[in-house]
Amino acid sequence: MQKAIVLFGHGARDPQWADPMKKLQAMLMDQLPHVNVELAFLELMAPSLPDTVDCMVQGGVKHIQVVPIFFGKGGHLKNDFPVLMAQMKEKHPQVHLEATSAVGQWDAVWQAIARQIVQQSQ
Amino acid sequence: MQKAIVLFGHGARDPQWADPMKKLQAMLMDQLPHVNVELAFLELMAPSLPDTVDCMVQGGVKHIQVVPIFFGKGGHLKNDFPVLMAQMKEKHPQVHLEATSAVGQWDAVWQAIARQIVQQSQ
Repeated sequence: MQKAIVLFGHGARDPQWADPMKKLQAMLMDQLPHVNVELAFLELMAPSLPDTVDCMVQGGVKHIQVVPIFFGKGGHLKNDFPVLMAQMKEKHPQVHLEATSAVGQWDAVWQAIARQIVQQSQ
Repeated sequence: MQKAIVLFGHGARDPQWADPMKKLQAMLMDQLPHVNVELAFLELMAPSLPDTVDCMVQGGVKHIQVVPIFFGKGGHLKNDFPVLMAQMKEKHPQVHLEATSAVGQWDAVWQAIARQIVQQSQ
């Protein structure tokens, strides 16, 4: 498995919080059978993003795409996340490590939300 | 304006964090011109959910639908949110106040996210 995706979420105390991310993971594993899809968290849940990336690199992954599962662009994405990415790139210079924008920046996501709300309001 | 929707998010220190929620608000105001759509936050940002609901009730709104803009079902949705809803219902018994499930429970949202990730991975 040379290519991998990390779904990177905030994390929470309640284990159930991660269930939708696990569902997304299952959907992606189904649609991208040749890509390794794992979860990672900023805080309160394990594994951390660096731990997940370390494991993938040890497993021979050469290309890692991190997808931040965050709605808004606040301190976590502006400050914490770039620092983590820089540290991981420095640690694993041989790996192609990149990040997409956060899902909250994707119009299609808000369009899907708006569609549901409009349907429920009529 | 007798009907209203409150987009209820977590909140953050960085004002830019709320931008996608404001975009959703604009989309909904466009698609539901007869519904009052406002934002409210659990913490770190104003207005709070009770303040927004109080204002709406003062403005004559009779039906309020709260949409939690949260990905996961953790302590905020399991504990904080039901307490807020119960307090508001007690304070405004004449108003029909209801909540949808959180957007993170909606399959269409995760399908939209998966679709984008798959497109970006190919």
